[in-house]
Amino acid sequence: MTTPPSSTLRLRRVGIDTFRENVAYLHRDCPVVRAAGFQALAKVQVQADGRTILAVLNVVDDARIVDTVELGLSEEAFARIGVAEGHAATVAHAEPPGSIAALHRKIAGERLGRDDLRAIIADIAQARYSKVELAAFVVATNQFELDRDEVLHLTEAMIAAGRRLDWHREVGGGPVVDKHCIGGIPGNRTSMLVVPIVAAHGMLCPKTSSRAITSPAGTADTMDVLAEVALPFERLVAIVRETRGCLAWGGTAELSPADDILISVERPLAIDSPGQMVASILSKKIAAGSTHLVLDIPVGPTAKVRSMPEAQRLKRLFEHVASRLNLHLDAVITDGRQPIGRGVGPVLEARDVMQVLENAPDAPADLRQKALRLAGRVIEFDPDVRGGDGERIARDILESGRALERMNAIIDAQGRRSERPPPAPLTHEVVAGADGVVAAIDNLRIARIARLAGAPQVPAAGIDLLKKLGDRVARGEPLYRVHAHYPADLGFARTLAQADGGYRIGDGVAPAPA
Amino acid sequence: MTTPPSSTLRLRRVGIDTFRENVAYLHRDCPVVRAAGFQALAKVQVQADGRTILAVLNVVDDARIVDTVELGLSEEAFARIGVAEGHAATVAHAEPPGSIAALHRKIAGERLGRDDLRAIIADIAQARYSKVELAAFVVATNQFELDRDEVLHLTEAMIAAGRRLDWHREVGGGPVVDKHCIGGIPGNRTSMLVVPIVAAHGMLCPKTSSRAITSPAGTADTMDVLAEVALPFERLVAIVRETRGCLAWGGTAELSPADDILISVERPLAIDSPGQMVASILSKKIAAGSTHLVLDIPVGPTAKVRSMPEAQRLKRLFEHVASRLNLHLDAVITDGRQPIGRGVGPVLEARDVMQVLENAPDAPADLRQKALRLAGRVIEFDPDVRGGDGERIARDILESGRALERMNAIIDAQGRRSERPPPAPLTHEVVAGADGVVAAIDNLRIARIARLAGAPQVPAAGIDLLKKLGDRVARGEPLYRVHAHYPADLGFARTLAQADGGYRIGDGVAPAPA
Repeated sequence: MTTPPSSTLRLRRVGIDTFRENVAYLHRDCPVVRAAGFQALAKVQVQADGRTILAVLNVVDDARIVDTVELGLSEEAFARIGVAEGHAATVAHAEPPGSIAALHRKIAGERLGRDDLRAIIADIAQARYSKVELAAFVVATNQFELDRDEVLHLTEAMIAAGRRLDWHREVGGGPVVDKHCIGGIPGNRTSMLVVPIVAAHGMLCPKTSSRAITSPAGTADTMDVLAEVALPFERLVAIVRETRGCLAWGGTAELSPADDILISVERPLAIDSPGQMVASILSKKIAAGSTHLVLDIPVGPTAKVRSMPEAQRLKRLFEHVASRLNLHLDAVITDGRQPIGRGVGPVLEARDVMQVLENAPDAPADLRQKALRLAGRVIEFDPDVRGGDGERIARDILESGRALERMNAIIDAQGRRSERPPPAPLTHEVVAGADGVVAAIDNLRIARIARLAGAPQVPAAGIDLLKKLGDRVARGEPLYRVHAHYPADLGFARTLAQADGGYRIGDGVAPAPA
Repeated sequence: MTTPPSSTLRLRRVGIDTFRENVAYLHRDCPVVRAAGFQALAKVQVQADGRTILAVLNVVDDARIVDTVELGLSEEAFARIGVAEGHAATVAHAEPPGSIAALHRKIAGERLGRDDLRAIIADIAQARYSKVELAAFVVATNQFELDRDEVLHLTEAMIAAGRRLDWHREVGGGPVVDKHCIGGIPGNRTSMLVVPIVAAHGMLCPKTSSRAITSPAGTADTMDVLAEVALPFERLVAIVRETRGCLAWGGTAELSPADDILISVERPLAIDSPGQMVASILSKKIAAGSTHLVLDIPVGPTAKVRSMPEAQRLKRLFEHVASRLNLHLDAVITDGRQPIGRGVGPVLEARDVMQVLENAPDAPADLRQKALRLAGRVIEFDPDVRGGDGERIARDILESGRALERMNAIIDAQGRRSERPPPAPLTHEVVAGADGVVAAIDNLRIARIARLAGAPQVPAAGIDLLKKLGDRVARGEPLYRVHAHYPADLGFARTLAQADGGYRIGDGVAPAPA
């Protein structure tokens, strides 16, 4: 198990980026590998200059990568150990992280206590879990659904594992606000309207946004069309101080490092359990220093939440945990039966947002209306605003141009893009197969077609919706236009749309909201 | 999602062994990485010369590993694609493997059908699952316990995914036998006695053995002290033809490739669910061509199976699946209250085995007796042997020296070691804290102390048991001796033994078997 003390190696930085997984590289003929019987993918403990990290072992046959007296570390592992190249280092079989016993109990179906969850999350945040252990935690907590207290303790543990911002100097006892959507609705870029509106009202809104992982665009991807979004943590803080808001990406890893790591496992498994969703969202908001949060929970047959009772259960879970953590939460259940706005994909969504901010006559009404409603709820966190006045105040700010002005200030602070690209040039129109009324639009299908067209990797790719629920269409009339940059992408998207375009045309009126 | 067609790269073999995980290496400045927005750890599909593999992406910053027009593959991925270096290759975002939908249904708690399991196991065997997906499958099938038919279908799928041996030419319609223990009992090296005995009786026994992963020694580690064990598949087959038996390692990956991959995830998670155990054991036996199997299920408070009802349930599950697959199974529930024999660790266990084969007067009686019992059960698969006669025949073979002779033939065929090493020189004796009778021995504790002492990586390290259940001891009398090669290892083992040595001394007689 342990290595003889003579096995000292020279530390070497290996120029391989293994994302959040620490990898150690040892040559097959390294004496330590031979003596200790290491196998590839074994978990090892690396020590250098009093610092210790855990890593997964890759065995190397090429002395140009590491030679027999070197111990190589992947980019992030090297940064994490924080010791110079050439320094003496030792390697040994890793003892399992301290919280593994608690993980095994969760796999066996037991409830975990506050200390168990704190230990697990601390080990995850310190990169002591392998991908396999992370996946086991995610699946086990998904299957034996976490009870309310477990979710509370998980959230607390995730906050405790990272940095926490404090805006007391900026706001005194006033609210620090945020707005968040649980996701799943294409085109739903209300944050890019709510942030400038509430910042223009004078509220502090340290919004962190994410890039798309399974959707055709995240707020960060869309904002990236207009401004620099990958900003260092300290820069984000300075921008919020200056403009009262920001729409950037980055820094979130420092706010809730365990969440960032867990998401890298949850996404490929398509796991999005209520407990994990609540802990993930609330831990980031609280770590960012927010005291008041408006939460958007869209409900619809192809949304994340499929029914009103399910939405109510999720709302109550959010409320329970938020109240225990002194976060004022206003959860709004919204209509998630179809995409919001017209564009799906970064460039097309940025166009919609700017049309609303510019009060363009043909700006998408549903995006405008939903943003005003949510901004109104945020503004009502202001103790000087009377209940019911928020939406009117938000509309005044938007119509007066003050929201656009604030958005421009945020864009300039983050770093304005020199030009705003047009939608991708190759197009394909998907048309109605019959006369009638649009009776249903499948969010998931639209998202998949937009991704196949290239979004978000190709920002100008995506879908432009020409018809929405309740619109009357004639057979052969275009329902939406697919934009792509590469012919192959357009071909894939077209093939998928031909199998099922995601629209259902009925003969009557669209059904009422869920 | 898809890469523009111009993105052709040059295939390069990267001398990094990532075990069963395919890794692709792309330079950060490679145009494909930039255009397609690949991130480290993304799953990619690599195509070259009409062949396709899935791999996990590592992004490289060092042109000596791969330059910007190269596509690197780790050792096993390179072997798997089977195309020469320098050949043109393309890379694209991977579509999820076809069985992922079934995996998601299992995560959500559904029962899976025969086709689902066959698709999952085929994808696993083809290395299309990431570690994360493998862990999700293992945890999900552990938590929603598989029903009997799911276990049957899982076993069938695991057989179908690999090679299958046929010994019809060697045995005609006669039995092809094997003996297997579900594990968990230190020192339990009966296979090394059963194989030469039944081979000397003339039966064909194509035994595959494994190395220890969590225990202080596997049969392959112990046999490694006496002979070469890492033999290519075709060599194993030839040895079995020549000597009617073998005690080697290797080739198992070809017999049940999915099992090999699943075990690499189950072991670190300490998951050993009944369904996975049954499918793993029976698939390997049937793929190796066995028609008759004696299965050893030890029961005891620190064994894998803790109670008689649990043992009976496991036995019935094994019997159900074996009968559907036309494997004759004789499951024997044995006494698992303590280690078998005296030695724990490869060299010490090999010594015990050879003492029994050599009919040494001080050979461990419990190991001899258990091996004769199990060999007798195997021999009774011989249609010419009367029920009840097997153990007598086995004893005759052992006492006449024919078992030793056969063992020597097997050792010579595999490749005899030039010398048999003595136990490691550094020792520490653990003594009784009181007068009395040995009332309990903790298998898990003994195994852990032996591993800290260095077993199995240091073959001569381990534990020599001087007292067993029911033995009378005086205060201060040695219970067992720890052997280590390195002072640090001895220190770790001693510290663990001081906290709890794994022995309980009572004042009466040892309790009856469970």
